Amino acid sequence: METVIDTGISMHKLCEKLFPICRSITGDGFRKSLAIIKNDVQLDDLQFFEVATGTQCFDWEVPEEWNIKDAYIITPDGNKICDFKVCNLHVVGYSTPINQKISLEMLQNHLYSLPNQPDAIPYITSCYQKRWGFCITEQQRATLKSGSYQVYIDSELTAGSLTYGELIIAGETEQEVFLSSYLCHPSMANNELSGPVVTAFLAKWLLSLPSRKYTYRIIIIPETIGSITYLSRHYKTMKENIIAGFNITCVGDDRAYSYLPSRTGDTLADQVAKHVLAHTHPEYVSYSFLDRGSDERQYCSSGIDLPVCSIMRTKYGCYPEYHTSLDDLELVTASGLLGSYRVLKKAIQCLEYNETLATAVLGEPQLGKRGLYPTIGTKEGEAKVQNMMNFLAYCDGVSSNLEIAEKIKVPLWELVDIINQLKAEQLLKSIH
Amino acid sequence: METVIDTGISMHKLCEKLFPICRSITGDGFRKSLAIIKNDVQLDDLQFFEVATGTQCFDWEVPEEWNIKDAYIITPDGNKICDFKVCNLHVVGYSTPINQKISLEMLQNHLYSLPNQPDAIPYITSCYQKRWGFCITEQQRATLKSGSYQVYIDSELTAGSLTYGELIIAGETEQEVFLSSYLCHPSMANNELSGPVVTAFLAKWLLSLPSRKYTYRIIIIPETIGSITYLSRHYKTMKENIIAGFNITCVGDDRAYSYLPSRTGDTLADQVAKHVLAHTHPEYVSYSFLDRGSDERQYCSSGIDLPVCSIMRTKYGCYPEYHTSLDDLELVTASGLLGSYRVLKKAIQCLEYNETLATAVLGEPQLGKRGLYPTIGTKEGEAKVQNMMNFLAYCDGVSSNLEIAEKIKVPLWELVDIINQLKAEQLLKSIH
Amino acid sequence: METVIDTGISMHKLCEKLFPICRSITGDGFRKSLAIIKNDVQLDDLQFFEVATGTQCFDWEVPEEWNIKDAYIITPDGNKICDFKVCNLHVVGYSTPINQKISLEMLQNHLYSLPNQPDAIPYITSCYQKRWGFCITEQQRATLKSGSYQVYIDSELTAGSLTYGELIIAGETEQEVFLSSYLCHPSMANNELSGPVVTAFLAKWLLSLPSRKYTYRIIIIPETIGSITYLSRHYKTMKENIIAGFNITCVGDDRAYSYLPSRTGDTLADQVAKHVLAHTHPEYVSYSFLDRGSDERQYCSSGIDLPVCSIMRTKYGCYPEYHTSLDDLELVTASGLLGSYRVLKKAIQCLEYNETLATAVLGEPQLGKRGLYPTIGTKEGEAKVQNMMNFLAYCDGVSSNLEIAEKIKVPLWELVDIINQLKAEQLLKSIH
Repeated sequence: METVIDTGISMHKLCEKLFPICRSITGDGFRKSLAIIKNDVQLDDLQFFEVATGTQCFDWEVPEEWNIKDAYIITPDGNKICDFKVCNLHVVGYSTPINQKISLEMLQNHLYSLPNQPDAIPYITSCYQKRWGFCITEQQRATLKSGSYQVYIDSELTAGSLTYGELIIAGETEQEVFLSSYLCHPSMANNELSGPVVTAFLAKWLLSLPSRKYTYRIIIIPETIGSITYLSRHYKTMKENIIAGFNITCVGDDRAYSYLPSRTGDTLADQVAKHVLAHTHPEYVSYSFLDRGSDERQYCSSGIDLPVCSIMRTKYGCYPEYHTSLDDLELVTASGLLGSYRVLKKAIQCLEYNETLATAVLGEPQLGKRGLYPTIGTKEGEAKVQNMMNFLAYCDGVSSNLEIAEKIKVPLWELVDIINQLKAEQLLKSIH
Repeated sequence: METVIDTGISMHKLCEKLFPICRSITGDGFRKSLAIIKNDVQLDDLQFFEVATGTQCFDWEVPEEWNIKDAYIITPDGNKICDFKVCNLHVVGYSTPINQKISLEMLQNHLYSLPNQPDAIPYITSCYQKRWGFCITEQQRATLKSGSYQVYIDSELTAGSLTYGELIIAGETEQEVFLSSYLCHPSMANNELSGPVVTAFLAKWLLSLPSRKYTYRIIIIPETIGSITYLSRHYKTMKENIIAGFNITCVGDDRAYSYLPSRTGDTLADQVAKHVLAHTHPEYVSYSFLDRGSDERQYCSSGIDLPVCSIMRTKYGCYPEYHTSLDDLELVTASGLLGSYRVLKKAIQCLEYNETLATAVLGEPQLGKRGLYPTIGTKEGEAKVQNMMNFLAYCDGVSSNLEIAEKIKVPLWELVDIINQLKAEQLLKSIH
Repeated sequence: METVIDTGISMHKLCEKLFPICRSITGDGFRKSLAIIKNDVQLDDLQFFEVATGTQCFDWEVPEEWNIKDAYIITPDGNKICDFKVCNLHVVGYSTPINQKISLEMLQNHLYSLPNQPDAIPYITSCYQKRWGFCITEQQRATLKSGSYQVYIDSELTAGSLTYGELIIAGETEQEVFLSSYLCHPSMANNELSGPVVTAFLAKWLLSLPSRKYTYRIIIIPETIGSITYLSRHYKTMKENIIAGFNITCVGDDRAYSYLPSRTGDTLADQVAKHVLAHTHPEYVSYSFLDRGSDERQYCSSGIDLPVCSIMRTKYGCYPEYHTSLDDLELVTASGLLGSYRVLKKAIQCLEYNETLATAVLGEPQLGKRGLYPTIGTKEGEAKVQNMMNFLAYCDGVSSNLEIAEKIKVPLWELVDIINQLKAEQLLKSIH
């Protein structure tokens, strides 16, 4: 049986396997990566969907499919640089094909580098405007001499389709918990292989449970156009059924824990995220919805208004390696992935534990006759059953278990045994 | 005529008279104490009620009645120690009878002492589990030598009844103010003779008033089982009629003033308590409902939800002498009792003063023509009638006088003359 | 064409012209001042209204009209002091006529001076109680010797009328913005020539606009009795139509900006005032409604409840020169007046810009295909359109533009171009 620590190592291994593949918002790299996840994590019911180029999705259209075989630059000295096969970040995403000799001066207009991070290859894409380009370290760029450069990009932009994966895990009710992550980034680790990998392992854990109160809607998509496409097909059902959801991204490093709220900031997902982080990682960083930058942009847009927030390690845009070749598998660690996995698991457990109950008797129940209360009055006695008494006091048929946990300042998971004991004693009744 | 300072001295004297009596949640000690209060404070309408052992009260049952005549231990040297007649705290409350010789080793299992307070006899009870025991100072316990000890407890646990006192003082309306205190503790002063004694004197004052807007429901009960018993008989009427109530306990020492809220923290009782304490003792300690430990546990339980909070001096559990023989009549003083009496009286007066009025004219009334405004405009002039103008400005038919007092940052009692003047000038109208 | 800086100078010049006139709550000084404003600022539609002495207005009555030609005191040495023609503050407002020789001892009862400001003539009125008096510097008062003083006041209290000016500037809707200022103070500059002068120039600017969404109700009145009189005639219409209003007073010095809320503190006027001041003068002083002292006393009285607050420079009562001869045209400056004019103009513009819209598409609109989004993904790219994206995210058919501006922490005026662009792209729809 796999231990918890094994889970961290397994997730990191899966990241390693997926890392070299050149992914984009469409194309075979995405498909291949999704297939590896399905196979390695044994998510047999993970369905693949293809949405044809040109399909209208809300205000957007599915773009042409982009595939690339090779790309490089030959310097006047005959050296091959910006070799796609060495690092796929060297090519601007969605670059049109080219095979041409041009001057350094011309070439400079198509080069992207980061003066402040001279040893980093930046990650650049241009999905909605046709252009070509190469990304290069500032250090290497500085060495380029005048002369004629052979630029070669063997890519294809064709009518094809956008791919996404969807896994529905049935629960006892039609109400849904929603997990979303994205797989459209090429060789970067925290943003973004950590998200789909942790999501896949959460799916595996959910499948291993004997039962689930909620149905789980889990999707692995390309960012932005993927969530727009998916929403355009399912948003009515989603609005009806989803009680809470998490956008899972940047969950792999060992630094901060972070929370980015939904637009309103007060959904059940927000309540759960803040409850779990406050009790497990009270030093967590709390962002504003104004700091958003991932698929919550769609999930929380006005008219969609899904209860979706993000629990992350160091947030996208907030770590120096973000969107460069430095976001690699040393930045993302087994323990970093494992920490996120555990926190998200706890958040899901809180959702499963959460219900609205009422104390079934008037006044305090006599816990003593049920063996739940110390039989002799001492100074220390009361403290022992304080959580139980506090839970009963606030259990009024209106406050949810989660809200009670907040009020009585204990983590919800520490109340689970207490609630089960009280249920066994017929001291609680459900509210429907 | 008795002065206010006399009231403090009278209350302390009554505490002295009641102090030596061995009280418990049932039994003759409770009855005798209640009879002394009724007689000495001249509360002729204070009714005694007896509820038979075994009566079901919500989730509880009235326990057997406990009475005790004597108890002590004879040491191997022939000395009498833990003598009930010297201090009734020496016997664990509700101890079963015993008359037996036992070894020190065996005896130790039945002794209770406080290592951190070596000169204090702890207060211990065991109402809901049959056992016997003695309480002893840590100092004395340390001197006990091996040998055979004669333990003697001449107590009785019999079918009997639980006793409580109830005084209903009729007012102009059926709406009620509720005062509750408890008399079930043996020889301790702050917790708890201060509560029933201050309550009795408040009742005396209420009876001396020419009229009262509200009806007053005043009860002196045993803690916990008493409030459960009382609620089980009256909670429907109480829920209907009680607009505010106070659990009166720990009101005798000279140290802090404290406030412990109702469960919701926003009832009229809470508003009044905070208003009075903020204006009379702004340094007061504000507790959370999570710090509760007295009959508000029942009054504020879910489904009961009475608007009851506590105004105390140093709260139970928060002073070193609590539940020991050190909680004596030096800790409780005439001035300590008097301070609580005054604060609670002010809280009751605020309830009586509180009503919802509306300014009877549009715009500011012309106070000048009524002699209520300085006739010459000066820098200082306006300040003089500021409270009157502020009251009128906020008197909108929705805000109560108490809420207005809070908004304009003056104690309600400083507005009483102003309100009466404005009423006399027909500038205010009542809202029904 | 007049520049903005010219506006400051023009306002100061108008103050200079009005300064020497002796105004009171009634009388020819008020009429003459109002006529100068109408003429000099070219407010041709400013209507004058006369309300007869004795007219009942809510709880008040229009007082007798007061006019004065001359006043002075002749000292025993034959010197003329407290000469009304030198400074009209020397006479207590509404003084009854007198021409009599009296002793210094008698005279002292009719003299007003300020011991703490020995070189200031105080401003004193007695509109609602008949008396006479002179205001004098403490310095001069100290030099008065025993002897016989000739006191002479050539004033008249007669049945006449109270005057006010009203300008209605029609807009596209019947909903109104309300501006109120008062002109009843004699020779003082900040309190109060700044208010009516800035108000008149705001009216001029409003008239110069090609169109206005709202109708503007602008009144120049005597303080207190004027607002009561005006309300008694129009409050029903005003309650129905006014969406926001400002009481314009103390808007001329160069020191603080201040905000005094409406009674509830949360009206649209309050929202706008706080929004504008927070973004233009974040150091502004925020007062409580308890600090009020001008016509918001009437506008916000219970039963009237108009959404009116005040944006000021240094508030009445809060600067040392207040209500003395030191409140002069050095204290009030062109830049002081101009600053207030600009802030109030911005507040009015915010009201005009404010509306409730909804994003017309589901999900984020694709700004790229409309040329509103950078076509290449870079770290910096997103920041550029952040305000547009934020506006769209919060534009939910419920939040007003002003509320969105607050949420996304940008001044509303910086969103105007964005909103117009989005409207042109059909990305926003109106909510009715």
